[in-house]
This record gives sequence, C-alpha cells and structure tokens, in this order.
Amino acid sequence: MKVLVINGPNLNLLGKREPEVYGSKSLADLFENLKVEFPELSLTHFQSNIEGELINQIQDAENVMDAVVLNAGGYTHTSVALRDSIAAVSVPVIEVHMSNIAAREEFRHNSLIAGVCIGSIAGFGSNSYNLALQAIITYLGSGQ
Amino acid sequence: MKVLVINGPNLNLLGKREPEVYGSKSLADLFENLKVEFPELSLTHFQSNIEGELINQIQDAENVMDAVVLNAGGYTHTSVALRDSIAAVSVPVIEVHMSNIAAREEFRHNSLIAGVCIGSIAGFGSNSYNLALQAIITYLGSGQ
Amino acid sequence: MKVLVINGPNLNLLGKREPEVYGSKSLADLFENLKVEFPELSLTHFQSNIEGELINQIQDAENVMDAVVLNAGGYTHTSVALRDSIAAVSVPVIEVHMSNIAAREEFRHNSLIAGVCIGSIAGFGSNSYNLALQAIITYLGSGQ
Amino acid sequence: MKVLVINGPNLNLLGKREPEVYGSKSLADLFENLKVEFPELSLTHFQSNIEGELINQIQDAENVMDAVVLNAGGYTHTSVALRDSIAAVSVPVIEVHMSNIAAREEFRHNSLIAGVCIGSIAGFGSNSYNLALQAIITYLGSGQ
Amino acid sequence: MKVLVINGPNLNLLGKREPEVYGSKSLADLFENLKVEFPELSLTHFQSNIEGELINQIQDAENVMDAVVLNAGGYTHTSVALRDSIAAVSVPVIEVHMSNIAAREEFRHNSLIAGVCIGSIAGFGSNSYNLALQAIITYLGSGQ
Amino acid sequence: MKVLVINGPNLNLLGKREPEVYGSKSLADLFENLKVEFPELSLTHFQSNIEGELINQIQDAENVMDAVVLNAGGYTHTSVALRDSIAAVSVPVIEVHMSNIAAREEFRHNSLIAGVCIGSIAGFGSNSYNLALQAIITYLGSGQ
Amino acid sequence: MKVLVINGPNLNLLGKREPEVYGSKSLADLFENLKVEFPELSLTHFQSNIEGELINQIQDAENVMDAVVLNAGGYTHTSVALRDSIAAVSVPVIEVHMSNIAAREEFRHNSLIAGVCIGSIAGFGSNSYNLALQAIITYLGSGQ
Amino acid sequence: MKVLVINGPNLNLLGKREPEVYGSKSLADLFENLKVEFPELSLTHFQSNIEGELINQIQDAENVMDAVVLNAGGYTHTSVALRDSIAAVSVPVIEVHMSNIAAREEFRHNSLIAGVCIGSIAGFGSNSYNLALQAIITYLGSGQ
Amino acid sequence: MKVLVINGPNLNLLGKREPEVYGSKSLADLFENLKVEFPELSLTHFQSNIEGELINQIQDAENVMDAVVLNAGGYTHTSVALRDSIAAVSVPVIEVHMSNIAAREEFRHNSLIAGVCIGSIAGFGSNSYNLALQAIITYLGSGQ
Amino acid sequence: MKVLVINGPNLNLLGKREPEVYGSKSLADLFENLKVEFPELSLTHFQSNIEGELINQIQDAENVMDAVVLNAGGYTHTSVALRDSIAAVSVPVIEVHMSNIAAREEFRHNSLIAGVCIGSIAGFGSNSYNLALQAIITYLGSGQ
Amino acid sequence: MKVLVINGPNLNLLGKREPEVYGSKSLADLFENLKVEFPELSLTHFQSNIEGELINQIQDAENVMDAVVLNAGGYTHTSVALRDSIAAVSVPVIEVHMSNIAAREEFRHNSLIAGVCIGSIAGFGSNSYNLALQAIITYLGSGQ
Amino acid sequence: MKVLVINGPNLNLLGKREPEVYGSKSLADLFENLKVEFPELSLTHFQSNIEGELINQIQDAENVMDAVVLNAGGYTHTSVALRDSIAAVSVPVIEVHMSNIAAREEFRHNSLIAGVCIGSIAGFGSNSYNLALQAIITYLGSGQ
Repeated sequence: MKVLVINGPNLNLLGKREPEVYGSKSLADLFENLKVEFPELSLTHFQSNIEGELINQIQDAENVMDAVVLNAGGYTHTSVALRDSIAAVSVPVIEVHMSNIAAREEFRHNSLIAGVCIGSIAGFGSNSYNLALQAIITYLGSGQ
Repeated sequence: MKVLVINGPNLNLLGKREPEVYGSKSLADLFENLKVEFPELSLTHFQSNIEGELINQIQDAENVMDAVVLNAGGYTHTSVALRDSIAAVSVPVIEVHMSNIAAREEFRHNSLIAGVCIGSIAGFGSNSYNLALQAIITYLGSGQ
Repeated sequence: MKVLVINGPNLNLLGKREPEVYGSKSLADLFENLKVEFPELSLTHFQSNIEGELINQIQDAENVMDAVVLNAGGYTHTSVALRDSIAAVSVPVIEVHMSNIAAREEFRHNSLIAGVCIGSIAGFGSNSYNLALQAIITYLGSGQ
Repeated sequence: MKVLVINGPNLNLLGKREPEVYGSKSLADLFENLKVEFPELSLTHFQSNIEGELINQIQDAENVMDAVVLNAGGYTHTSVALRDSIAAVSVPVIEVHMSNIAAREEFRHNSLIAGVCIGSIAGFGSNSYNLALQAIITYLGSGQ
Repeated sequence: MKVLVINGPNLNLLGKREPEVYGSKSLADLFENLKVEFPELSLTHFQSNIEGELINQIQDAENVMDAVVLNAGGYTHTSVALRDSIAAVSVPVIEVHMSNIAAREEFRHNSLIAGVCIGSIAGFGSNSYNLALQAIITYLGSGQ
Repeated sequence: MKVLVINGPNLNLLGKREPEVYGSKSLADLFENLKVEFPELSLTHFQSNIEGELINQIQDAENVMDAVVLNAGGYTHTSVALRDSIAAVSVPVIEVHMSNIAAREEFRHNSLIAGVCIGSIAGFGSNSYNLALQAIITYLGSGQ
Repeated sequence: MKVLVINGPNLNLLGKREPEVYGSKSLADLFENLKVEFPELSLTHFQSNIEGELINQIQDAENVMDAVVLNAGGYTHTSVALRDSIAAVSVPVIEVHMSNIAAREEFRHNSLIAGVCIGSIAGFGSNSYNLALQAIITYLGSGQ
Repeated sequence: MKVLVINGPNLNLLGKREPEVYGSKSLADLFENLKVEFPELSLTHFQSNIEGELINQIQDAENVMDAVVLNAGGYTHTSVALRDSIAAVSVPVIEVHMSNIAAREEFRHNSLIAGVCIGSIAGFGSNSYNLALQAIITYLGSGQ
Repeated sequence: MKVLVINGPNLNLLGKREPEVYGSKSLADLFENLKVEFPELSLTHFQSNIEGELINQIQDAENVMDAVVLNAGGYTHTSVALRDSIAAVSVPVIEVHMSNIAAREEFRHNSLIAGVCIGSIAGFGSNSYNLALQAIITYLGSGQ
Repeated sequence: MKVLVINGPNLNLLGKREPEVYGSKSLADLFENLKVEFPELSLTHFQSNIEGELINQIQDAENVMDAVVLNAGGYTHTSVALRDSIAAVSVPVIEVHMSNIAAREEFRHNSLIAGVCIGSIAGFGSNSYNLALQAIITYLGSGQ
Repeated sequence: MKVLVINGPNLNLLGKREPEVYGSKSLADLFENLKVEFPELSLTHFQSNIEGELINQIQDAENVMDAVVLNAGGYTHTSVALRDSIAAVSVPVIEVHMSNIAAREEFRHNSLIAGVCIGSIAGFGSNSYNLALQAIITYLGSGQ
Repeated sequence: MKVLVINGPNLNLLGKREPEVYGSKSLADLFENLKVEFPELSLTHFQSNIEGELINQIQDAENVMDAVVLNAGGYTHTSVALRDSIAAVSVPVIEVHMSNIAAREEFRHNSLIAGVCIGSIAGFGSNSYNLALQAIITYLGSGQ
C-alpha cells in the first residue's frame, strides 16, 4: 500500500515554531516516526507552501498512490481549487489537523475540503497522522 | 484504563436503518467488536435519545472514567447544554461521527461541542470508534 | 390502519392555556373526538415534554404503526435529533400545528422537520389533526 | 358556500409536466374531481401565470366568495403585492402546495403569503386541495 | 405641465378597505381632489395590479409627460424591472406612499425604486399625493 | 401654529459645502425663506452637531410646539436615543432629508427614526422643508 | 409566598466545578442559604439536566407557586419549548444567571427566554438568586 | 431549427435608451440582423414587460421550438415563477444579457434562472444574442 | 460606600411619559426613594441626554466612587465609546434597565456595555435600581 | 489577432476526469480543435494549477496579446489577486466556464473576476471556448 | 504648516489607564513630545468625549488648519455624523490609532471614517502620531 | 538593522499601470528611493505574484531579518496561510498599502493579516513604505 502524506503551508516550521505547543519534533522526525510505526506501508512525503503545488501532488497521486493524508494548513479554509483537485481524483484523501481547529478562530471552523475527503481527524497533535494511516489501512482493507 | 462510549439520538437504530449505507452491524455488535479489539481497555457503553441523560453521563464520568468517546448525533449541532457539561468536567472527551458530516446538509457542518473536546474523528463508519480509542490510548499514555 | 398521534411540549396544557384562543377542549377531548370521527382508524396517543421521548416514539412506530401525526411544538424549530429520527424510519410522518406558525415570531417560521415529513398542515386549530388523518387515509389508500 | 380555487404560474402544465411525479391528471381533471367530491360546495376555478391577475381575483372574491384556496406557485416566495391583496380582503384564504416546499430549494422555504392566510397545507399532491376544502367547511361551519 | 399619477397593486381598493384607517375616499375621489387642488396641472391617472402594465406606463410617459407620481404598492420592495424602467426614462419620477412604510413590517423597509426616483414622500395619507405634486411644481420650476 | 425646525450634524455648513450640489443658500437663508413662505406659522430654528442636544430639543418641544421638522443628518442611521426621544413625546415629528438617501451609500438606507415619525420626505433639496411644513398644516388641520 | 427555584443543566456541579470561579458552595448550600436569608418565603428547589423536566416543572408551578426563579443554563439559548412553557403559564418567572453571559461566547449573548420572563438578573454569582427573590417580594407586594 | 428569442422588461426601449451605451440599433433592428446572420435558423421574436407573458411563451415553446434565447431583464433576479417555467419544459433555454451584470449593482449579481438554463452569456452587447444562437447550433448539433 | 447613579437619554422624562406604564414617579422621586431605602449608602445622581457627558461621569467616578449604577438608555445598544470608558476604569459598574429589553424591538436585544459591567438587571421597573444597590452592597462587602 | 487561452487549476485533467460528463477530449485536443476552427487567429495556450502563474500570464499578455480567454477554475471564486491583475491590464479578458456554475454548489455562484472581464460565457462544455473566440473577433472587429 | 491633533473619547485617560500597556505618558506629555519632535509645525491639540464637539472641531479646521490628525476612539466604529463632517471639509484628515484595532474585538475591525480620510496608521503606540505628522509633511510638501 | 520589503501580486506593474494615479515611479525606483532615504538600514526587496513564495519569504526572514514590511496586495483579503506564516515567526511585520483600501470595494475592507502584524499604514502612496521604515526604526529602537 502506497500512501502519500502531504503537508501544506507553514507545516515545514514544525519543531521550530512554538515547541511548547507542538513539541520539538520536526516534520522530518514526524515522518520518520510514521515510517517506523507503519513498516507495512510505503510512505512518501511532500510539503509545500504553494497552493498549486499541493494541487499538483493530489493530481499526480491518481493511479500511483493508494491513499493520501492531507494537512492543508491555512488552505483548508480558502481553497476551492484544492477541493476541486480532491474531487477530481479517485484516490481516497483523509484530512488531518494537528490542532483542534474548532477551538480556534472563527475563520478556521469551516473546512472547504472536508466534504470531498472520506473523513477528517483533528486535534491529536502528531498522532493525528498515525490515526489517519490506521484509518487508511482499515478503509483499504475493507475493499471499500 | 476505563473508557465510556456514549451514543446519542437515533444511533440505537444502527443495523436496522439503511444497512446498505451503515452496514448490518448493530450498536451492540459494534461495541462487542470494540471490546475484542481493545482488550487492554475497560469499556462501558451508554446510549440514549434524551439530551439530559447524555449530560448526566458526561458528568458522572468525572473521576470515574479516564476518557469518553462521544457520538452526540443530532445534538452535536444544537446543544449548548451538552457543550457546557463537557467543559465542566476534566475527563477528556473525543467527538466521533460515523458519517462525514461536512459532506451532508449545511446545518450539520457546525459542531457546538468540537471546541471543548480534545479532538474529532468523522467519516470512517464504525472504524471512527476504533480510531478514537486508539487516540485515547496515545493521549493518556503521553501523560498529557 | 394504525396511526400514532404524537404531541410535543406544552400541548398537555391544551384547554387550560388561553381558552379564548385554543378553545376549552383538552388534549384528551381532542383525541376522543378524533376517535369518534375516524372509527375506521386504530388511533394511539402520546404526549411528552421531553425531546428524547418523542424520538423514542418515532422510532418505536417503525413496523408497528402505518403513519404518525406529529405536533412537535417548540422542538419543531430546534431539533436536528428529532429530524433524524423521522428520516431514519420508513413510517410516513405528517407535521401538524394548531396555530399558523408563519404568522407568529420569526424564530417559528423555519421548521427543521418539515423537509423529512410527507407534508405539513398548519393553522386550523384542532381541525389540523382531522385534516392530517384525512390526508393519511388518502395517502395510504393510494398505495404510495 | 362559494369557494374560489386559484392556481398560479405553471400550474396549467399539470399532467404534462413530469407525470411520474405529479400524475397524469390535468388541472381540469383535478378541478372536476373536486366538484365531484364536494357537491355541497359551489366551486369556481381560475388559473393565470400573471401575478396581477391573481391579485385581481383575490380582490374580486371579496363579498362574492366565502373562501379562497390559493396555490400561488412561484409567487409564493416573492410577491408582497399578492400578500397585500390577501390582507386587504376579509374573505378567508388557505394556502396550498402540491409538493412539500420545505423539502425543495432553500428559496422555496419561506412563504410571504402564509402569514396572512388562515392556514397552510403542503405536500399531499392533488389531495392538498381536497384537504383545503375540508378545512374550509370546518372553518366556516364553526362560525369563526 | 402634464403629470401622470400611477397607482400600483391593491390601491384600487381605497375607500373599501379599512375605512377607519384610510378614510372613505375612493381612488377616484382622491384623483378628483388632486385635479381641483392643482388646476394649473394637466393630470392623468392610471391604476393597475399588473407589474408589467406599470412598467408600460412609465415607458410611455417618456417625452409625453413632464413628471410621474408613483405609488408602486407592494412592487416597491421586489421589482427590479420597475426600477429599470424608471432608470431608463428621463422623465422625473417621485415615489409616494400613503402609510409610513418604515413603521410597518421589516420587508417593507427597503425600497428598490427609491434610489432611481428624484425623491420620496411617505406617511401623510392622501396628502402624500398633494405634497408630491407640490414638489414637482417646485422641481420643474427650478429648471433642474 | 408653532413649529420647531431642527437640523442635526453638519447642516450648519450649508451653502459653504459643495455649493454646486446644495446651492449657495446658507441654513439661515433657508430658514428666512421658510418664514417668508409660511407667514401663518410661528417658526423656530435649532441646529447642533451634538446628539444629546437634539434630544433635549425634542423633549422640550412637548406641550410647547405643535409640530417638529427634523433633519437628523448622520444621527438618522445610528441613534436609538434620538428615536426614543421622539417616541416619548406626543408632538408630531416629520423626518426630512435634502438628498435622496436611498441613492447614497448602503449605510444611509436605513433610518432608525422613520418608524416613530408621522412621515418622511427626502430628495427635494431645500424644498423638502417646505413640503414638510405643508404636510404639517394639513396634518394639524385635519384634527388627526 | 411560595417560590420555586429551578436550576437547569450542569448547575448540579456547583462547588465541584472551577471552585476558584464559582466558589466552593454546592447547589444544596446555595439553596440552604436562600432559606436562611428569606425565612418569610416558602422555597422549593428543583434541578435537572433534562429540558423536558424543566418544562414539566414550569407547567406544574401554575396555580401552585407564586413565582419561579429560573436559571436555565445552556437551554437559555436554544429552547423554544422552554420559552413556550413560560409563556403558557401565568406564574411570574425571573431569569437568573450566576455569570455575566454578555461577557462570554457569542452564542450565549442571546436569551430565548428573557422576552417572556418579567425580568433578568445576571453576573452576581450566587447573589443573583438573592436578588431575584428580593425582586419577587417587591413584584408580588406591589400587586402587579 | 426553430428558435424563439424572448426579451423581457424594458428591452423594447433599445435604441432609444442611452444610445451612447447600447447603440442606436432598435430591438427590431437587432432581430432583423439575427435573421440575416443566421439564415439557417427559423427565428421568432417576442417581447413583453409582463412577467406572466414571458412565462406563457416559455410554456408554449414546448414541443414547438427547438430552443429558446432568453433575456429576462430585471426578472432575472426576482422571478421564481419564471425559473419554474424553464424547469418545467424540456426545450433548452439559454440566458443572455447585453451588459456585464456582474459589473453592475449588487442586486444584479445573482441570477435566479441561470441554474435551470443550459448556459449563460453576458456582456457582449447585441453580439450576446449571436453567440447564443451559435451556442444553440452546436448544442443541438451535438445531439445532446 | 459612595455610589453614583447615572441615567442616560430620555430618562429625565420619567413620570411624564406613559405614566400608566412607568408610573407617576419622577426621576427625582425615584432617587429620593433610593436614598430613603439605602441610608447606609452615600448616593449621588446624574442624568444627561449627551453621550459624552455620561462618559465623563464614568471617568470621574474612578477613585472617587465605590460603584456606579448605569441605565444608559438608548446608548446601551450603540455606544462603543461608553463601553470603552467602563472598561477603562476599575470602579465596578452595574447595568440596569426598567423595562425588559429582551421583550422589545430587535435592536434593543443586544447590549454593547453588558460585557464590561459586572452584571445586569432588567425588567423590574424602578425596583431595578434597588436591586442594583443591593447587589453593590453584597459585591463590595464580599471584598471582591 | 493574437489570443492567449489560459486554463487554471485542475483543467489539465480534462479527458481523464469524469469523461461521461466532460467528454474524452483532453485539454490538448481542445486547443488543437480551437486552432483548426479559428485559423485566422494566432492562438497560444497556458495551463497552471498555481494562482500566481496565472497572474504572471495575465500581466505578460499586456501589449503582446490582443485578447485573453480565461477559465480560472476554482480561483474564480476566491482570488482578489487574479481580479487585480485583470483590472491592471488593458488587454480584454473573457471569462469562460465549461460547466454551468450557477447550477452547482452555492460557493461557485459568485465570481470575483466577472466584474473586470468584458463578458462571461458558461455552460456550453468545450464550445464555451469557441464562443469566447467568436466574441473576441466581433469585439475587436468593432474597434471597441 | 498648521496641524490640529484631535483625540476622541477616553484618550484623556492616557497614562492613568493600563500604564503597563500604554506607558505612563499622559496625553499632555504625548503632545509636548510631538511639539519637540516637529518644531517646524504649528501644532494645536483638542480632546473631548463628546461626539458633536469632535465634529465642531473638524468643521472649524476648514480654511484654518492645513491638516488634521484624528484618533476618534470608540466613535471610529459608530459615527456616521463624524464621517460626514470629514467628507464635508477639504482639509486633509489622517486617522490614527495607538493600538492595532484589527487585533481586538470584532466590532472594532470596521472604521466608518477611514474611507473619507486620506490614510490610516494603527498599532504603533504613541509613535502612530509621529508617523501621521511625518505623513502630513510629505503629503503637503508634494503639493497634492 | 536588516529589513526585508515584500511586495505581493501585481505590484511589479508599478509605474506602468495607471501612472496618473500611482505616479511613473517603478517598483525598482521606489526601492532605490527607500535605500537613499534610509542609509542606516540594510534593505532587501522581494516581489512575487505567487502566494506561497511570499510565505517562504516570511518564514526565511526569521532570525535573519530584524523586521519585514509587507504589501500583500490582493492576498491581504483572502490568505489564511499568509496570516499563519506571520503568526509563526517572531520577526515583526508591518502591513502597508499604497491606496486607502477602506475607500475601495467592500471586499477590500477586511484584512486577514492585520491582526497578526504589529501595525498597519495605508493610503499614502509610495510614502507608506517610508512611514513603515520609520515605524520600524522607532519600534526596534524602543527595545520592544
């Protein structure tokens, strides 16, 4: 099973930004940790601050990846184009957020992409990614 | 670790209602399955269609349970009182939904309780509950 | 044909509250009158001020009743959970109101349950119930 | 008892438009059927696609008709002028709709005329008209 | 000076409708009275309940009339087409209302046509028309 | 008949501000002109840029003045307190505006005071005041 | 004078929840204290987390109690049914809140029940109840 | 191929109204020009300021016309009834506007009819009609 | 204990305005009555219709008064500046209203100042002031 | 005449995504087809999923291209920056959409760029591009 | 160059209110400091808590002052009258705020006066005034 | 002191676009001018039309630059991702605009980034940048 993990804008700062909140683990550490915890998966990672490059990745995942885990950061709330790319491909996409976006500013409460993902996981820190991979294994294993 | 699983209104119909969508597994089956999959947890289950009884359960979980998994059904979108009960207790609560509420009617897009839960999981069918328990184990294990 | 008549919050005050508006007929009188007028129907009556008990009744009507007449009172405008229960069962539900809710306060203009009922009747006093039963006879008689 | 049945825009297409939904009965058939079912009433019928002609009919019904049954079609949601005409006459008007407007597009959920009618009936197909006539008989018979 | 007085929907009921509020003067009386009070003006009157006929009159007034006094009744609040017709002609139009629309229902507070008229007068009963004619004399006399 | 003409904020600039729009007549000229045109009225004038002083004047007019003509300027759209003062006195108040406020910015379309005045006149330049006095003469003369 | 004190959802946690904010006094202590401070009143207390049971209590107070003090907690902002019950009885109801709800989240700023109570008191901690009883004594003593 | 061109309110003023904007071509000229440019089409033209007559034309086009080009003028933004008539027939309708409605007032930005037309063309002056006919030829030629 | 009672716009009309509603007690009577009922307090009174003078009083109360009772009248709903003055001082302010503002017009339901006062009391007529002083005695006595 | 055709996000998937809806023609096919159909035009094509690159192309078209055809995909509804780039250049831009955006989700009904384009064409599948080129030929030929 | 610095409500508390936030510099200190830093300017200062007095100052600055620096405090967000006074004079006005209003409560995000000032400066503490004077020197020096 | 000046979409057109409004100075000229006026600062310039590249620059400024001056152009109003990048770094960012955005279209009135910048300067043409640098010198000099 090949799974692509996509991280959007500002997630490359992980570990440097507010370590007392997000921990001192960098995005690279986080991804290494996922590879250790899920040896049965073939994991690829991509990060970009550019909206269109995230769209490119979603598109390129079609027929190549079995699933995508997407933390779209700030684009979660503003990008119709990103939503369209998810709707256009048949590869299943799972939305993740490290923080509990419902407990933050009003403009973060609405997700434009949630409606075209198969599901959403938010609020569990870096563990949100582990849960998403767990969800993918079950989802794909059920032949859905 | 003692975990209480609370299901709100209409979830008692599971297995009977739209089986082609929700599968033929009843709520009892679902809970049995959770017990088998998580033998290391001490699981209790409660279901009610009555808003105030859900509040009672949240309150009674304080100092008795280590965590609560809550699928509040239709009360998710309308109950300030339920939100208050979660905010009033220190036991961590995780919000789950079987369906992807962001892909349904407009009035289901907003959750009044998400902001006071530690996190939310939606869209993975009965597996949403498994992921929530997984999240609890990690959350409590991290000494958070 | 078995029909369940459900009355929601505050309808138990009928006859005592504002008799110049609602008449001096109690809810019991109203129901007796329905039984006299519709001897060909097997009628059952239920009233509660508790939202969840109304949901219980809707659920229990499945496979037992041929139709439900529902005056949800104040829950008409606030209960997603009640709406879900109606959507979850296949028994046809008709929404009734004694008063013309469109001529009252703004917050009574929107009905959360109307969209999942087969139809709505409002404004004819106690006769709204008679019209609803009439509607049921035609509806069921047409094999719809 | 003289009752005027008024049908607004596009209702003249009845029987031709989407027969699998609305049945193959034309508006003329529908009206004939009403006359057969209510021999005790003196029924008149009027249909127009022109908003002002509906207003003319409402006005002319004053002191001539005992009641009006009105299906205002699309004008239901936009016509303050039609609302004014109903408010200006003392003849009682009942709002009917064949479809359940609450289950259709958002812009059909609000009725500008409901607040000045004595009551509303929606969702029972052609039977909505029968129920409205039934309601009129009771209403007028009660000396209200 | 040739002035056209246009009255919209339901104003033909004047004198018959709620005489304790609007007085017992009919629309014909009102217009006769205007002719007596303003002998220096050449006055024409038109009333219709049909939106499009009001538009026709506005259009036909171009190059024929020196000014128009318009009481658009319920169309005041909903008719973009009527607004367009006023904007399309160069003849000055004055908006009048007998009642104080700002003291009535919310949906009467906004006038779609006021912005393209030269001015508005509301709330003075039949005297609103006299004031409008007075305003026209001053307006045209000032060579504006 | 004693009539008080009240002008609110910035109207003291009349004649100096945008003379091509408002003419070169000052507020003093305007008032002199009113006195000439209406010798049968006893006119008093008051202008202030201070909201509370306008309220004081409205209150003091009670039992002293027969009517008030009020151009509340920018306070028209924001002052609940001014509205309350008009509602608190029995002296009739007429709202005037020189410009057509419906053709200006969105935030000028709503008048908080119109609903408690007996009528409104807007858009006729300085003639709006003349029309208001005319309206008062008719209003008081009719013994309303 | 018989007065019923009703407390809604989550108020049973008083003294246990956030004692640094709400003090260490339990709801029982609070009520005992009221009885000591108001020996001239016959006080009864009721608490429930269930919306319908609060409605039942409001209804049952009719003709039995002289007044009701109601802290509806989270139902304050969502319950049309509770509002209806207060409007349906003639016993005077006073709304109280321990916290200053206007200083909290946006969704707590609007009270659905305030409009049908005789008055509201908020923000004085447990003293809000004392003030409400004081208000009742004056209210009933004035023969209003 | 038979195509009906329908023009709504105020379009009969074409050539007279603001010639520097809309050109000096009348509606008759415009239609003649279309006939010259599209000799392969059998074109019919209809204009009315009356909403209901536009609806009549849409209805009558069923089974008689192959397509309809509709410039609904001001009714574009307010007429649910017109929308219903388009939805009720199977003849394809194309929405045209001479001006770019998105660059005009806010209340012209939303089209109630666009959602039930097969497509929309706006902003190209009289050429909008030519493009619409071009679109029809392609649409019908493709056997859609 | 020194307490300043501030009354805002139009409250100087008390006793003259609608005596059947507000009673025949003037503002002076009301204040005298407070002094009699609370001999242990040193009371000062101030009334003004001018927003800025109310702000001046709030500011001047700092370090001079122990508490302020404020009925801001119509400024309650519109004055950010008044809110700022309350937030800027450390003297506790209590909001009072004689009428139940929640039962009046929509624009009176929101209070801009409530969020920065320590509490609010509304709906008890002149007794609202007595309750506020009672609240102050308890508040200050508790050493809060 | 040199015309640049710009396609925004996800349009590179044409032919692969939902072929039963969009046909099996790829974006390259579509462009080849345009070149065949419009041999008199010098056509260039550009596609990108990156918002800023679309802006670059709009800017670079100035003084180089005679017109631009723009299908901005999902950025249509969210990009003020794209709107600004169109407003900043003098080259005429025409907005096209293959689907009828008015018949899709609510958030697609508003176009931020339509107001600065010379016109819009939507709903005719790949033919929308042909119509746009046709519109350009007429537009430029008219010397506008 | 003569420049008037106007400070609105509550700014007279500077130095006394929250000194840890705003520093211990009083408004007098702040103004003295401006005079020292800008010896080439003739500076005048005015402060008032009364909306109308601010308007008076704006009006009086016409033809007397070369520019105005205005910190309107809470009136920034509510005063149409203040906006009107700025629009009515030709003297350039610059809006300043010491705090970053965009980072505070929602009701402070909108400025009614910004649109009629030549520019705005916010968030730099007392230095906002220095920057405004700097801006004036450049603005006037450029002969704009 | 090292300061990075970032310009967003379409600002590269400066000097070419509407020179009568923005002057004939290019962005390069503007930056050269800043270097001349502020020889004590080490200035770097960056411009891009691509949202993500602006985010990259903000991130890279951390620990390298002492401050950032940011004109985000059209992204000011739509980019949550850009806001997040500013919030994620500790380097102070100042928002500038050449035009007075409050005097332009409605959709430009709200800035998503202002709340996380230390301050904002708008409306002074190219001088806005000079003022921002001045603000930075003071800000950093004060040891804040």
